[in-house]
Amino acid sequence: MGLLMARQAVSDYGPVQLLDVDELEPDDLIAPCGSVGAPTVSIEKIENGQEGGRLRRRLEEIWGRPVKALMSSEIGGSNGLMPIVWAAPLGLPVVDADCIGRAFPELQHSTLELAGISPTPGVMTDERGNLVEFRTQSGIWLERLARAATVAFGGSSSSSEYILSAGQAKAAAVLGSVSLAIQIGTIVGSAAEDPVQTLVRELPAERLVTGKVVDVERRTTEGFVRGSAVVEGLGADRGRTIRLEIQNENLVALEDGQVLASVPDLITVLDSDSAHAIATERLRYGQRVTVIGFACAPIWRTPAGLGLAGPRAFGYDFDYLPVEARADARA
Amino acid sequence: MGLLMARQAVSDYGPVQLLDVDELEPDDLIAPCGSVGAPTVSIEKIENGQEGGRLRRRLEEIWGRPVKALMSSEIGGSNGLMPIVWAAPLGLPVVDADCIGRAFPELQHSTLELAGISPTPGVMTDERGNLVEFRTQSGIWLERLARAATVAFGGSSSSSEYILSAGQAKAAAVLGSVSLAIQIGTIVGSAAEDPVQTLVRELPAERLVTGKVVDVERRTTEGFVRGSAVVEGLGADRGRTIRLEIQNENLVALEDGQVLASVPDLITVLDSDSAHAIATERLRYGQRVTVIGFACAPIWRTPAGLGLAGPRAFGYDFDYLPVEARADARA
Repeated sequence: MGLLMARQAVSDYGPVQLLDVDELEPDDLIAPCGSVGAPTVSIEKIENGQEGGRLRRRLEEIWGRPVKALMSSEIGGSNGLMPIVWAAPLGLPVVDADCIGRAFPELQHSTLELAGISPTPGVMTDERGNLVEFRTQSGIWLERLARAATVAFGGSSSSSEYILSAGQAKAAAVLGSVSLAIQIGTIVGSAAEDPVQTLVRELPAERLVTGKVVDVERRTTEGFVRGSAVVEGLGADRGRTIRLEIQNENLVALEDGQVLASVPDLITVLDSDSAHAIATERLRYGQRVTVIGFACAPIWRTPAGLGLAGPRAFGYDFDYLPVEARADARA
Repeated sequence: MGLLMARQAVSDYGPVQLLDVDELEPDDLIAPCGSVGAPTVSIEKIENGQEGGRLRRRLEEIWGRPVKALMSSEIGGSNGLMPIVWAAPLGLPVVDADCIGRAFPELQHSTLELAGISPTPGVMTDERGNLVEFRTQSGIWLERLARAATVAFGGSSSSSEYILSAGQAKAAAVLGSVSLAIQIGTIVGSAAEDPVQTLVRELPAERLVTGKVVDVERRTTEGFVRGSAVVEGLGADRGRTIRLEIQNENLVALEDGQVLASVPDLITVLDSDSAHAIATERLRYGQRVTVIGFACAPIWRTPAGLGLAGPRAFGYDFDYLPVEARADARA
């Protein structure tokens, strides 16, 4: 859906300029942007095209100066493309960076939070024209209040928070993530043979299992998708059963109670033929998939990063180990 | 609790001036104020004293001019006293008026909504220092979003909305309601004999039943108290059973399926000895009570008023009849 919206926006308004953060002046204001809510809702309840402009106007009123560029709040999923959707009609450039280096379910899961950038004032809107503005004591309080507003809006919303300068972004954002996404797309799209194998080699990633989705349990609740998916191995993996636990994103991959990979590392379900990513809201019985795990941005492996988005931050009672270390230990 | 807080504020900061709306300049800004949420929560989760000042500062930033007076969002319950709690430390006067002429559970239940005054920008805060600002398409959307934030805050919050000028208040607010509350207090406090009988005669009100609370069912849910109370008649009313249906306030009084009184008229439970009002969150088994019904402010009996806060607006499938007409029909 994000790709469809981005293509439509570019077709209607022309292409969007991708800027390195260094191409902006240090004081230039950057607005991170994205959808908040349950992806199962976002694929049916879509924006009407006014959201980005409304948020930009309000941010400029609050800051008293222009927004010079947009940036993805998270490069994973539809939000990787949301800046394009907003930037095309506004004639704004998009910065080659994002605020996580992957997707995470909650607003405080941001490298900007780790850098001490204020999460608020933040603004949120819906397709009806309602606007809510937050000035909170913490990123957690922003998450609670923004999530509550999102649920009131029907389960998804459009929002901008952790507004920052280009100088701050250079130090605090995950740089180059749009380029990396394009590079991954190029690898997958141009692979001479087996795109999954090519991607695993080039990222690099750990192949966790190749098999079939045999069960999906998914609830849209409190502004999130929560649930799990089970993949049964095929071919060389026959007899193996891997369970993915989901909160919007894949949080943990488990096999017989053993952790194969966990947040903050990335766990991605790929179509085994095309290597296209299958987001959690698109998982369904019978899909032939390969689950891969790969390294998060380095900052998430620091004590502060793990404190904010490690397994224990999501309620799990085990310590983080890098996905490649877990693979080595099994080998 | 509202009375305790108001007494403390006046003891700490001195008395608060009560103004007729005519004593203000027509352009003077008035901030309605009150708690939002479930009264069962508000009696335990109290303000810390900073809320009124924080809301006033933010309102003045938004409007670019000073707030000249506070006004009760609703004269019923603790919110009748909340302007005193906020005004004493701020040195502001309080206007002798409110926005309903009683209490109603939802934010759009306001004579200011009937007058077409914009509900937003509205501001809401909590005791931790978080602040949320709403710019909505309607009073209903304000209610949905403010209620969601209130639940996120733990079930109660402090808020100001339907900000207006003194000129607008003169035409749209319920004038003299603070004086009326004081007058009722004086009648009850100085009654030579039976205070309930004196109050019923002076208001005037319909006595619906005198008896004992024999059942209270009360849930704190979605930022409201919902439930019901049953009063069994005593003395001349022995054998009668009256059921009150509650959403923060008493919405309907029923006897054997027959409506005795309903919104927007007032249904008040009085201690049978003292004639002190017993709010819904204080109802409990065994209380000796007299339930009275009396006329709402005239605007609520207009088609627009009944559309916003008549029985059907609360989900009941019957038409409104004034409480005195229902009493006459039974007599």
